Amino acid sequence: MVSRDPRSRRVALGRGAEFDLIRKLLADEGALPEEVLVGPGDDAAVLVGGWVLSTDLSVEDVHFRRSWISDVEIGYRAGAAALSDLAAMAARPVGVLVSLAIPPGGGADAEAVYAGIRQATRDAGAVVLGGDLSRSPGPLMVDVVVVGRAVDAASRAGAEVGDDIWVTGTLGASAAAVRLWASGMEPGGDLRRAFTHPVPRVTEALRLAERGIVHALVDVSDGLAGDAGHLAAASGVKVVLRTDRIPVAAAARSALGDDALDAALYGGEDYELCFAAPAGAVRGDDLSIPLTCVGHVEEGAGVWLDEGGDAPRLLERGGYSHVEGDGA
Amino acid sequence: MVSRDPRSRRVALGRGAEFDLIRKLLADEGALPEEVLVGPGDDAAVLVGGWVLSTDLSVEDVHFRRSWISDVEIGYRAGAAALSDLAAMAARPVGVLVSLAIPPGGGADAEAVYAGIRQATRDAGAVVLGGDLSRSPGPLMVDVVVVGRAVDAASRAGAEVGDDIWVTGTLGASAAAVRLWASGMEPGGDLRRAFTHPVPRVTEALRLAERGIVHALVDVSDGLAGDAGHLAAASGVKVVLRTDRIPVAAAARSALGDDALDAALYGGEDYELCFAAPAGAVRGDDLSIPLTCVGHVEEGAGVWLDEGGDAPRLLERGGYSHVEGDGA
Repeated sequence: MVSRDPRSRRVALGRGAEFDLIRKLLADEGALPEEVLVGPGDDAAVLVGGWVLSTDLSVEDVHFRRSWISDVEIGYRAGAAALSDLAAMAARPVGVLVSLAIPPGGGADAEAVYAGIRQATRDAGAVVLGGDLSRSPGPLMVDVVVVGRAVDAASRAGAEVGDDIWVTGTLGASAAAVRLWASGMEPGGDLRRAFTHPVPRVTEALRLAERGIVHALVDVSDGLAGDAGHLAAASGVKVVLRTDRIPVAAAARSALGDDALDAALYGGEDYELCFAAPAGAVRGDDLSIPLTCVGHVEEGAGVWLDEGGDAPRLLERGGYSHVEGDGA
Repeated sequence: MVSRDPRSRRVALGRGAEFDLIRKLLADEGALPEEVLVGPGDDAAVLVGGWVLSTDLSVEDVHFRRSWISDVEIGYRAGAAALSDLAAMAARPVGVLVSLAIPPGGGADAEAVYAGIRQATRDAGAVVLGGDLSRSPGPLMVDVVVVGRAVDAASRAGAEVGDDIWVTGTLGASAAAVRLWASGMEPGGDLRRAFTHPVPRVTEALRLAERGIVHALVDVSDGLAGDAGHLAAASGVKVVLRTDRIPVAAAARSALGDDALDAALYGGEDYELCFAAPAGAVRGDDLSIPLTCVGHVEEGAGVWLDEGGDAPRLLERGGYSHVEGDGA
């Protein structure tokens, strides 16, 4: 699905302060080498030979708090979050490289963090290929580089007018857990697990790719609004989402009531897939996990929300920003 | 130069607390996939198709201080240090992925750090392929993933009894700069530049590899003692270094006097190459930079220092540890 047209090897990003800065940082880059099939802007870079690479940073007190979850869980979610970028490219995970900065003295346990990363890596069928290690005079930080391989890598670009927009699983549970913790409450089983043990949708992405029905694919890491925005921007189209179709997690609904939709749209860290496919090409039971048609693609730009009443309204906000803090 | 023997695809590490921890962390890893030619323990992983990957972490107040150098320089040295791992594999740099965690509010300037990384990347003939961005509630951290390609990747393993040990350039200047800063002094031009603008020896490594005379190769990132130790451990040999041959940088000698040798052996961050080649195969003028024969390979283990008097003594210390702090 990756275009070899050199003009399209850089991918446009959606809204948000984090992406404004990234756009600026990447502004004056030169030409990409021939052996780079996809450069900055997609979920991962793609190299000749089908190698797919991405990197994902988890920072204490930005992405997680050590008072919320264990060191093993910190490692697991950092690994799973990074591996989700391979799912977003329909790439099979091969290995990870782990850079770990650990506060010394009685604090975080490097071996426990590492055990969590290794478990997430094994669960995805991959191995640890290397890494780097440092002490940190401040927060614990984990940067996980994921290495995968794709026969035909998926891209954020490629959604066509008339396509349906689909989402796997349910959304908002991880963000609901964070909101409970932030309010001094302890999230229960399903909510907590959504945050600590996200499942990168690798199997599902490979299955969808094999069927050849995916025009554009992204993982939902920063909230559906933000990630559908990346897909829209990369594809040069408008995405219209129907409020009543968004599969808000039941546990998020119980915990947050009407705010659960906001958690699904802007909360982030669900690590589900969002993809565009031709109308009628996908069935709701195509995968062994829930699959929901949440909207469609039109000519235009941006992500619009159809709330069933008046005309759809443009979502001005992007997803969660790990640079500026909560967009929600 | 990479062996396809699966037993040798993991590479043994030398002495030091950082490496003791890494050994522990990697202890119960399973089998490597077929498409991984070199796994953990060498300077980088090597994948089918000749792709070479490594990651290198730079943490404020561990690897650098913001009172010492500018944000552009922080980026440059982080990029150059990471690219040096490609030189150590005799790989041609293709691209980098950059994960950046920046303290918010008036502190470090993400664009300046990024400009430095981009300059180091361009200087090495590579481009930025992607990355991640977060705020940091503590120190600035940069993790640079380097992506290169090698026709026949060099390895730390492969040194043979009777080989000579060679070093490019001079050693100790970067560590001398750090020692001056740590003593409240300001290092002068050559010393400062050794720290802020290390030159990854990519051209030199490719030239040596083309000549087919390198049995084992490593970059000197943690001090000659530590990195020669990795080469010895990976190759299953003893390395004997001659004190009087070690090319201590003149500026380091001026600044530190007799302590300059210590900076060369244990200080780190020189980013020169250290390699084993058959006796007589290398000439001192084979490269356009200084090339010095500093010792030879014998049967045995560890790094030994021949000070010209009694029998050589085993160096018990590894190189600089970014986990435990100064080994010096």
